[in-house]
Amino acid sequence: MPVISLLSDFGLEDGYVAAMKGVIAGIAPEAALVDITHLVPPQDVAAGRFRLLTAAPYFPAGTVHLAVVDPGVGMVRRAVAVRSRSGSWFVGPDNGLLLGALEMDLPLTAVELTEREFWRTATPSATFHGRDIFAPVAAHLAKGVGLESLGSEIDTASLVRLQLAPCVKMAGGVRGAVQAVDHFGNLVSTLPAGMLAHHPVWVATVAGHVVPGHRTYGEVAPGKPVALLGSHGFIEVAIREGDARRVLGAGVGDAVEVTWPEHSKREQQVQRLGGRASRKRRPRRP
Amino acid sequence: MPVISLLSDFGLEDGYVAAMKGVIAGIAPEAALVDITHLVPPQDVAAGRFRLLTAAPYFPAGTVHLAVVDPGVGMVRRAVAVRSRSGSWFVGPDNGLLLGALEMDLPLTAVELTEREFWRTATPSATFHGRDIFAPVAAHLAKGVGLESLGSEIDTASLVRLQLAPCVKMAGGVRGAVQAVDHFGNLVSTLPAGMLAHHPVWVATVAGHVVPGHRTYGEVAPGKPVALLGSHGFIEVAIREGDARRVLGAGVGDAVEVTWPEHSKREQQVQRLGGRASRKRRPRRP
Amino acid sequence: MPVISLLSDFGLEDGYVAAMKGVIAGIAPEAALVDITHLVPPQDVAAGRFRLLTAAPYFPAGTVHLAVVDPGVGMVRRAVAVRSRSGSWFVGPDNGLLLGALEMDLPLTAVELTEREFWRTATPSATFHGRDIFAPVAAHLAKGVGLESLGSEIDTASLVRLQLAPCVKMAGGVRGAVQAVDHFGNLVSTLPAGMLAHHPVWVATVAGHVVPGHRTYGEVAPGKPVALLGSHGFIEVAIREGDARRVLGAGVGDAVEVTWPEHSKREQQVQRLGGRASRKRRPRRP
Repeated sequence: MPVISLLSDFGLEDGYVAAMKGVIAGIAPEAALVDITHLVPPQDVAAGRFRLLTAAPYFPAGTVHLAVVDPGVGMVRRAVAVRSRSGSWFVGPDNGLLLGALEMDLPLTAVELTEREFWRTATPSATFHGRDIFAPVAAHLAKGVGLESLGSEIDTASLVRLQLAPCVKMAGGVRGAVQAVDHFGNLVSTLPAGMLAHHPVWVATVAGHVVPGHRTYGEVAPGKPVALLGSHGFIEVAIREGDARRVLGAGVGDAVEVTWPEHSKREQQVQRLGGRASRKRRPRRP
Repeated sequence: MPVISLLSDFGLEDGYVAAMKGVIAGIAPEAALVDITHLVPPQDVAAGRFRLLTAAPYFPAGTVHLAVVDPGVGMVRRAVAVRSRSGSWFVGPDNGLLLGALEMDLPLTAVELTEREFWRTATPSATFHGRDIFAPVAAHLAKGVGLESLGSEIDTASLVRLQLAPCVKMAGGVRGAVQAVDHFGNLVSTLPAGMLAHHPVWVATVAGHVVPGHRTYGEVAPGKPVALLGSHGFIEVAIREGDARRVLGAGVGDAVEVTWPEHSKREQQVQRLGGRASRKRRPRRP
Repeated sequence: MPVISLLSDFGLEDGYVAAMKGVIAGIAPEAALVDITHLVPPQDVAAGRFRLLTAAPYFPAGTVHLAVVDPGVGMVRRAVAVRSRSGSWFVGPDNGLLLGALEMDLPLTAVELTEREFWRTATPSATFHGRDIFAPVAAHLAKGVGLESLGSEIDTASLVRLQLAPCVKMAGGVRGAVQAVDHFGNLVSTLPAGMLAHHPVWVATVAGHVVPGHRTYGEVAPGKPVALLGSHGFIEVAIREGDARRVLGAGVGDAVEVTWPEHSKREQQVQRLGGRASRKRRPRRP
């Protein structure tokens, strides 16, 4: 039973998401449908991109990810389907929405959707390609139709990528930006958690607040700010049992700096931790 | 695997929807459950009717649509199940909720739900027929129980219909009203898109704003109003990448007028378009 | 096809719920996933407890209930799985969240989750045990893994219980409190409906408002307050076609008193109702 995930900015109060699911049920009734979210802010491709990349990696290979945040619907953006290295599929508009998830699980093959026999109708609505093109294409992929049947192959390097705030090295740290704010008000930066592999002691600075880095919420008192390696793989700033967006007055696009003091270097940590870590760092060939 | 769609005004923060799904899982575990929406404004039968009619047509034949917006629960409204011409089922209160979808896919047979052996309990809650009557009946239908087993047949002409603002012909156009506002703030009128088949040039007027008719959002600049043939089959007024409800200050019930200038008549368009369209209109037998 | 229900405070706008579902789909693809709610107010264990107990009883035996409202994630609260008397499973943090549902369907066996082979990774995120521990454990249970494999057995009496406002007997009635406010603004008390079995005439008092007890909304006019035996089994105070939270100015924690006049006693009711009820109360052996 293949899984089809769904992500959109259609909201939950209308029948638009269900129309897509009805179309899928008519083509691939055995597919399991899993919503990622439909509460992406209207037309906010960057927000949709982030939601997709935080969920897609946890689905089994063979999942079809159907994602529609599509301010260019009916205009000249391409409609695409992409097969990833790990064997999953991504279907949606070529506007950067899919490429966050596909930076981690690289695109292998991509086609522009042109074969109308796999659409709901050869004359799709000018405003709802989710229902008339993307949903039926996702259902056909789940049913086993080959990618090459759906349209003409395009260069994966030509797929549109969003320009996010780059991660910039500074003296004793890095600078990025808030790329998303989640339901809890946590501020998710563009800085990958891996940057801290050798810096166990660090602080984050956002909107003028200097926030200590920790491993869990529990290391600060309720109501206090804490910076963490978020579960999505990025450094985030939170308030324990509170809302960092509100308390710290920060939001998407604001700069986030992460800095570490000299004495936090891995070598010194290893000295503090003693034996086990030292053994790992012992040269194999003396 | 039959599909059961669910629509209600129960919201998403309580356990009410899940209670219905738990009841269904106990009766028809193989049914695929698809939410249409549970965010119909409380007790707003007209809004629920619109959501149902925009989603139901896209589900495969044999789908059971379970819809509960039921201000009259425990009072004298009938509980009904209806089989449509296309072979789908509709289960819910007889208060007009079901009859929008059933205007497009006509009711064939209807019963009043009276056979308590198909309910969750012979003594249902006075306030939650969704869980105790409608959900188990929908599950039994999905499992193959015949409509006639569920209660006594009633005349489909007796099913309650809502009175919407009628579409009225005017000089050079038609007048209707806003019947729904969607998640994007688009104003959906009661005017069927088919009315424009012979009028390629047209404008919509709502709340004092005159809005040009186009085929896609892309034909106006971001932030500008545009009238469209909505994907649900009705004429709608939108703001490109914006919220028409807020920007135009309009809402449900407001009048919508669609007018076309004399020179927009099909014949004149054909002249402008020239050859191809002309050929189509050439008399077959000269 | 086993059912896994999901409840959390993760909200619907992020990818967190989907990450859990993706993990489950990778382990138990045949499981049917049913959301209870993900809109529990952040970190509000009591609200989550109430939502779970209003939904769980309607699911078939064998359902796995996965519930995550977890302000203590990464700290010293236990992670547990519990088998209930009726044969369902509950998986989540041991903080009182699960114990409302498990007061009605008593815990039979409980384990602390310690066996990392059933987790997504042996080194789970410090902030997202839902994805890395609870979801995979729920999936393994749905697939048939025995409870005893997941960790070491603990005393069910040691599971954390929340202290709710107790139900206190008063002269001619009982006193409790509002334990939840639902989507409609209905005020749900802690007073079990069973308390009224012998008191057909009663009133509820909340926030200074005296509200008549009735069987259905229809027994008062639209806009008027009414007290009812709620579908969840507790006494609730509502406004017909309105919002009691707003109109009565009451909320969670406010006292609710239910009182019955002397003349409402069952014996006197029977006299009023006459024959049929009298027959039922006639001594079997004269």
